Amino acid sequence: MKKNAFYAQSGGVTSVINATAGALILESKKYKSKIGKVLAGKNGILGALREDLIDTSKESLSSIKNLRNTPGGVFGSCRFKLKSLADNKREYQRLIEVFKAHNIGYFFYNGGNDSADTAYKVSQISDEMGYPINCIAIPKTVDNDLAVTDCCPGFGSAAKYIATSTLEASLDVASMSETSTKVFILEVMGRHAGWMAAASALARSSKGDAPHIILFPEIVFNEDKFLSKVKQIVLKYGYCVIVTSEGVKNKDGHFLAESDLKDAFGHSQLGGVAPYLASLISKKLSLKNHWAVSDYLQRSARHIASKTDLLHAEAVGVHAVRYAVKGMNGVMPIIKRGKGNNYTWKIEPAPLSKIANVEKKLPKSYISIDGFNVTNKAVNYLRPLIAGEAFPDFKNGIPSIKKLKLEMVKKKLPDWKV
Amino acid sequence: MKKNAFYAQSGGVTSVINATAGALILESKKYKSKIGKVLAGKNGILGALREDLIDTSKESLSSIKNLRNTPGGVFGSCRFKLKSLADNKREYQRLIEVFKAHNIGYFFYNGGNDSADTAYKVSQISDEMGYPINCIAIPKTVDNDLAVTDCCPGFGSAAKYIATSTLEASLDVASMSETSTKVFILEVMGRHAGWMAAASALARSSKGDAPHIILFPEIVFNEDKFLSKVKQIVLKYGYCVIVTSEGVKNKDGHFLAESDLKDAFGHSQLGGVAPYLASLISKKLSLKNHWAVSDYLQRSARHIASKTDLLHAEAVGVHAVRYAVKGMNGVMPIIKRGKGNNYTWKIEPAPLSKIANVEKKLPKSYISIDGFNVTNKAVNYLRPLIAGEAFPDFKNGIPSIKKLKLEMVKKKLPDWKV
Repeated sequence: MKKNAFYAQSGGVTSVINATAGALILESKKYKSKIGKVLAGKNGILGALREDLIDTSKESLSSIKNLRNTPGGVFGSCRFKLKSLADNKREYQRLIEVFKAHNIGYFFYNGGNDSADTAYKVSQISDEMGYPINCIAIPKTVDNDLAVTDCCPGFGSAAKYIATSTLEASLDVASMSETSTKVFILEVMGRHAGWMAAASALARSSKGDAPHIILFPEIVFNEDKFLSKVKQIVLKYGYCVIVTSEGVKNKDGHFLAESDLKDAFGHSQLGGVAPYLASLISKKLSLKNHWAVSDYLQRSARHIASKTDLLHAEAVGVHAVRYAVKGMNGVMPIIKRGKGNNYTWKIEPAPLSKIANVEKKLPKSYISIDGFNVTNKAVNYLRPLIAGEAFPDFKNGIPSIKKLKLEMVKKKLPDWKV
Repeated sequence: MKKNAFYAQSGGVTSVINATAGALILESKKYKSKIGKVLAGKNGILGALREDLIDTSKESLSSIKNLRNTPGGVFGSCRFKLKSLADNKREYQRLIEVFKAHNIGYFFYNGGNDSADTAYKVSQISDEMGYPINCIAIPKTVDNDLAVTDCCPGFGSAAKYIATSTLEASLDVASMSETSTKVFILEVMGRHAGWMAAASALARSSKGDAPHIILFPEIVFNEDKFLSKVKQIVLKYGYCVIVTSEGVKNKDGHFLAESDLKDAFGHSQLGGVAPYLASLISKKLSLKNHWAVSDYLQRSARHIASKTDLLHAEAVGVHAVRYAVKGMNGVMPIIKRGKGNNYTWKIEPAPLSKIANVEKKLPKSYISIDGFNVTNKAVNYLRPLIAGEAFPDFKNGIPSIKKLKLEMVKKKLPDWKV
């Protein structure tokens, strides 16, 4: 029984989420007796609710293959979380209606733990509503905070960007520190988990190398301890490189740089820890400093993607299709690390019930006792994830991006207001 | 008559200034009858004043060759400007003493227009003081603001970083704009000249592509006009990408994000235009926005260096040596663009008198009439400068950096206090 597939991207995009999409579309073509078209949601799950479906079969093979070189979310992503079944059954019913209308039997949801939760709920309700669907959540998040999977596609590339940028900027600062900047602060993403900040440790090759201080959301910020550490490092090395998570909090549990904006998931919108720390260092230590905030640059930096991460991203797309055609439901293809010193990995299915809404923070054993560094255990975990380069093609000096046609499927249902 | 050479790096470093150093050292080895050792100043010109001289002949050939892959200033740079001859003749005399003590007959000063000025003064005074030296200033600055030369080594790579980052981040923003961030602001360097901000225009491949607004130091910031433009762009495209120079000023001539810190050259230390604009957009337009400040990341991003820029950087190092052994004095090897549609270039000597202390801003003909964009003329000028990739070697997932021995030459003179 041949069914169409629905694929949607959810939440913050990454430099390799389109690689997952491309691999999934290509793999689907191998199961012509089971999978018809892959329809992509325009702007994520909103595309399903609004019946805004993109017909990926209209794209050329080369465009689909080129998705592995394209950062961002090519079909559009969204920050829109379906409410609980009790609160808004109407949304789930609408999803099923749209799926029915377009003969969709496979639901691939590419996102973080919020999306795993949605896919999990749809996997439960579709049976109840008499329209069974194979729901597969596919991991994606630069935050690397999904449970069960060893790591999350998107993270390795952001980590490689952060390690490379920290290394490069530290060489700059070191060379100028005698008469100019003594302290450099790089702010990276990571609202509740310090994985991205931790990745900056991969910039080091020998003792004394930057970063000298890493600040994690998992560790309460202690101003005195921090300032004394900065002073000590500048005395010892002549300069100090600090990498801070956006989500560092003080002892009252407030973000150091809290704004009153919230996104659609109810999360605070952060930014500005680096200038906060810079001002602190200027005032209290009178040390000349510079700061950078990499923001979206770090999660879209396809030009410095990790090859390992890119392969992970493609593999989860491929396995999502394989699980779906095997009739699996409510699972996620996760990355499982092999034992032994040489890094190996494989993809396995894991139940969404164990992943949905769970946030994996940095384990205590990954953070040094003083709270300003990672342990060797963390480095051993992180290092393989940034291994290998996968430079995109360049044209006219910039990465070559092929634009898709993004042809919409004709609507069959009445309009729907979100 | 064989003389040693002195080489120093000055001012803000770039991702390719070490490529110039490496090429200069390698080229010097070809003139064994004229050039003895190349001694590098530790921390720039301070190294000459303090007699802190690094013996580059102790480095392995592979280390010197690897300098083309190493960002930052490997011998140390400094923000230290020699005063005028009238104000501090003592410093110039000390330079000559150190040069005499170490049999230095060639002075290579790798920097911007301040450094060209110093080299120019030394070229004049050395004759007067009876110790003739061949002074060659070598261009280097991400600011691209040197006169006479068509462009400045370091700029093309920063420009490629900015164009690539703008492209990548814009794909991210575009994919999320329906339910999340509508405006993205990237702050780039450029205190008085908008060359780096202008380079963001190279991110575009077709009409409507980001960046949608570029802010230059050359154009007075008009809040109303700016906000109305942002609103208009968001209505039209659903999102708006803004690239702003750090040095944008209001009608009173004040930097939008002025701090009261000044560096050793008396320049204000800037930073923070992006959060300023972000806050303005939040308050006045209630549009969700994100911002990034690339700061040192943009000028140290060797991993995304322009091959053209790298070749320029090496060529000016090579020609500096050739000019010196020909007995030239008070000149700079500059980059001269050929005529015709295909980009060609060569190196020529130019007198420092025409370069010292002159700042080349964006010509009016490079900025659109509304002040928010560049013209085709600017794009035609800029495009060739970011052409070609020159990825460094990677090891363990990060660029492979070879550390130098940096062996110091034995001092012969009494200590000197700056």
